[in-house]
Amino acid sequence: MSPVAVDWRTSATLVGTVLKALTVPLAGTAAVAAWYGEATMPFLVPLGLTLVAGLALERFDRRDLGLRESYLMVALTWLAIAFVGAIPFVLAGQGVLADPINAMFESMSGVTTTGATVIDSFDAHGKSIHLWRALLQWMGGLGILVLAVAVLSQISVGGAQLMETETQTQDLTKLTPRIEETARLLGMLYVGLTALMVLSWLALRVAGLAPNVTLYQAVAHAFTAVSTAGFSPEPASLGYFSPAVQWVTILFMFAGATNFVLMYFLLEGDPSRLRGSDEFRFYLGIVLGAAGLTAAFLAVDGQFQRVEPLVRHALFQVVSIVTTTGYATVDFDLWSAGAKHVLFLAMFTGGMAGSTTCSIKTLRWLVVVKSLRRDLFTEIHPEAIRPVRLSGQAVDEETIKDIYGYVLLSLVIFALLTVLVVIDATRVAGGVGEFEAMAAAASTFLNIGPAFGAAGPYGSYLHFPDTTKLAMIALMWVGRIEIIPVLVILTPAYWRS
Amino acid sequence: MSPVAVDWRTSATLVGTVLKALTVPLAGTAAVAAWYGEATMPFLVPLGLTLVAGLALERFDRRDLGLRESYLMVALTWLAIAFVGAIPFVLAGQGVLADPINAMFESMSGVTTTGATVIDSFDAHGKSIHLWRALLQWMGGLGILVLAVAVLSQISVGGAQLMETETQTQDLTKLTPRIEETARLLGMLYVGLTALMVLSWLALRVAGLAPNVTLYQAVAHAFTAVSTAGFSPEPASLGYFSPAVQWVTILFMFAGATNFVLMYFLLEGDPSRLRGSDEFRFYLGIVLGAAGLTAAFLAVDGQFQRVEPLVRHALFQVVSIVTTTGYATVDFDLWSAGAKHVLFLAMFTGGMAGSTTCSIKTLRWLVVVKSLRRDLFTEIHPEAIRPVRLSGQAVDEETIKDIYGYVLLSLVIFALLTVLVVIDATRVAGGVGEFEAMAAAASTFLNIGPAFGAAGPYGSYLHFPDTTKLAMIALMWVGRIEIIPVLVILTPAYWRS
Ligand SMILES: [K+]
Ligand SMILES: [K+]
Repeated sequence: MSPVAVDWRTSATLVGTVLKALTVPLAGTAAVAAWYGEATMPFLVPLGLTLVAGLALERFDRRDLGLRESYLMVALTWLAIAFVGAIPFVLAGQGVLADPINAMFESMSGVTTTGATVIDSFDAHGKSIHLWRALLQWMGGLGILVLAVAVLSQISVGGAQLMETETQTQDLTKLTPRIEETARLLGMLYVGLTALMVLSWLALRVAGLAPNVTLYQAVAHAFTAVSTAGFSPEPASLGYFSPAVQWVTILFMFAGATNFVLMYFLLEGDPSRLRGSDEFRFYLGIVLGAAGLTAAFLAVDGQFQRVEPLVRHALFQVVSIVTTTGYATVDFDLWSAGAKHVLFLAMFTGGMAGSTTCSIKTLRWLVVVKSLRRDLFTEIHPEAIRPVRLSGQAVDEETIKDIYGYVLLSLVIFALLTVLVVIDATRVAGGVGEFEAMAAAASTFLNIGPAFGAAGPYGSYLHFPDTTKLAMIALMWVGRIEIIPVLVILTPAYWRS
Repeated sequence: MSPVAVDWRTSATLVGTVLKALTVPLAGTAAVAAWYGEATMPFLVPLGLTLVAGLALERFDRRDLGLRESYLMVALTWLAIAFVGAIPFVLAGQGVLADPINAMFESMSGVTTTGATVIDSFDAHGKSIHLWRALLQWMGGLGILVLAVAVLSQISVGGAQLMETETQTQDLTKLTPRIEETARLLGMLYVGLTALMVLSWLALRVAGLAPNVTLYQAVAHAFTAVSTAGFSPEPASLGYFSPAVQWVTILFMFAGATNFVLMYFLLEGDPSRLRGSDEFRFYLGIVLGAAGLTAAFLAVDGQFQRVEPLVRHALFQVVSIVTTTGYATVDFDLWSAGAKHVLFLAMFTGGMAGSTTCSIKTLRWLVVVKSLRRDLFTEIHPEAIRPVRLSGQAVDEETIKDIYGYVLLSLVIFALLTVLVVIDATRVAGGVGEFEAMAAAASTFLNIGPAFGAAGPYGSYLHFPDTTKLAMIALMWVGRIEIIPVLVILTPAYWRS
């Protein structure tokens, strides 16, 4: 962009603003801790630290954020929140989270909306700690929405420019000329969806359909469902709740991974944009196709005698994985190889761009599929010019190449992480199954949450060696902010003027 | 290319020529059968059929082969040889190969140089049948070399135009103006390498280092090593032979997956081209890196007490998989998860373009790696123009996109095949492990041969349901001829004028 050195001061200033904002959730959680008679210091100490650090960082000069500064700001923000997020876990000193590496794993898994947990005993942790886990995820989901609009849509990150087109933020921007206003509208929708989910759960309770739902449970799960993040205070995850609660939660996970701009227009009374979205149809098709396949495997397996539980559990697990939420209603690690294989492959899809979803995302896969099909045609008719069209609009060829590159890069990093997981497991822990290693690598790097085997939905990542946990911490971070920002700031050329 | 309908007659004519040529190996195998006192009719019947069919097809008008006709010719040739190749198996009526689907699987696995076998009892099949298996593979290897030069280098098949550049066939073409002459030189090198391997094995026998090597064994294995194909008449594969034989065979597998043009120049006394090849260094690096990692896993595992066997078995298995040969010196299915995982990932690399190797090939991966690294740089310096360079030459951006697309297409087809394998196993055979399903899908589609579990190196593909076998037959064919030709002729637009 510019021949001058990267202006790290501006990035640091913005990180300072974010840190300062963290004082609000920390104060809120401290209040909840006081309400339940739990220790407040684990939250008040980081509150003080972030206030001081935030004010100090904000004293740097702030200029307009350039391309290179955006990368740094995004990468540093997530890292900073993860560090701050780990402090309450360590200070609370409860169970395995007293260990700094475990605390950092849990915090990074939270803020990246991954949902992989190291907690082996859920009772060992207080209500305020479980709420903090949920809040980290909710902030992470909000952050990614704002990031998608304010930063990623302005720089070309593996087809992010296309995302801007497809997510139609430019249309929204026409309505609301300032980017801050657009981000605010999406944020309001996010808050609104969260509130709606809380109310839905409480309504089920009132209707007698959800006997064990409390306000605490409703809030803790609304924070982690709409953000497609997946932490739960319950060891059985959504399996703890009634079928009605599970059905309702399917809807909110699905919404959390649906393009927020399209949902905004839907709420404004214009459903045509959602209906006209090629990506939405593709996303819906993947969910229904994978759920149908999973249901068929379960039917052959004979685990469920009645139709409703079979359909519900198949659909719930598929929606949970495709949207990258990571909740479970049953221990799907006990399912047959076929059903588990479908869930494993579903980890690589993700939901729609412009949402809180993680992983590769349906927008990129749809472009890959459409472009490969187009290439076959031009292979036969080299003279033909036939652009790839998405919801009627032509996609730039350079964007297609960026998307191809992004998907390949994701798969290569995934493969490298699997190698590290098996090396480490062999070195320290006496081995890990090949499929378990692949699932754990995919589930952390792609920010899903649960894997198979010991790290299954009712298990934890506690048993992985520290080096594996550190690698997963790094790759949850890399994966959540779409890889490129981190790789860019790790390039020597980035720091040269 | 042209607005007229595809000229299938020209394609059929060329297939006729190939069929006619098949009479030579059929006659040779019939002679060997007579020598060993085995039935000759399984070979004489298809000899008569191919002669008649070949002569009949050749009566069609032959014109210059256009782009569209090339696809059809390539696809039909492999299919036709596979059909003819299956006839001796069925007519001989020995063991499981008497079944037509098994025979077709074995024949397609042969001609595509895959090396996946359905044979459960090797003794049930005569020496002539085992030789026919080897001959199919040797012909398949020769076919792919000629195809690479004569057809694929002229059409853009996932970066095949780059392959022409990188394989430097144009330099060879300068030496030998006619493409037929280039193909002839490469074919001679192939024959020469095969003969050299036969002589090497026999020399080891004479030197007392290979007590159980016979002329038959030397020929049968030379046919399947230089073609990186992997069938063996021995159930223990190369584990049947002495360490000296195994070391020598490592060299010939490695050579079989090395660019033949570069080897030609090396034999002409010009080693600079091989040394200057970025792809060769990459290929060598992958082999040594994966072998080192595998050796480390084996050392931790403690299976081998001495260094030489440990190094030999690690290197042999890695070279066998990376080159896509598929031989084994031990039942590596019994190795630790770490070692097996390295071999699994190695399935996706393949050896060098312009050789008999299969899978994705190091040339494509090298371009992917270099291009992704370049993209990171231009992400920081958008104004910079920095082409991707391979052995000093700039790679066309369109070619890079083609290669990205090819790799993605391969991975998508692989994923779809894994789904089919698990569905079918659930439907018919009571399930299959997730990792076993993935390995079997990769090993057949990428033309490696052995997988893990029941289809491990000392096992067979016999237990897979017929529908899975049929899908694997189709995808071995699709994978061997680099996917695009088959997909193109399956596109409706191909057949429209
Ligand atoms: K998640
Ligand atoms: K092979």
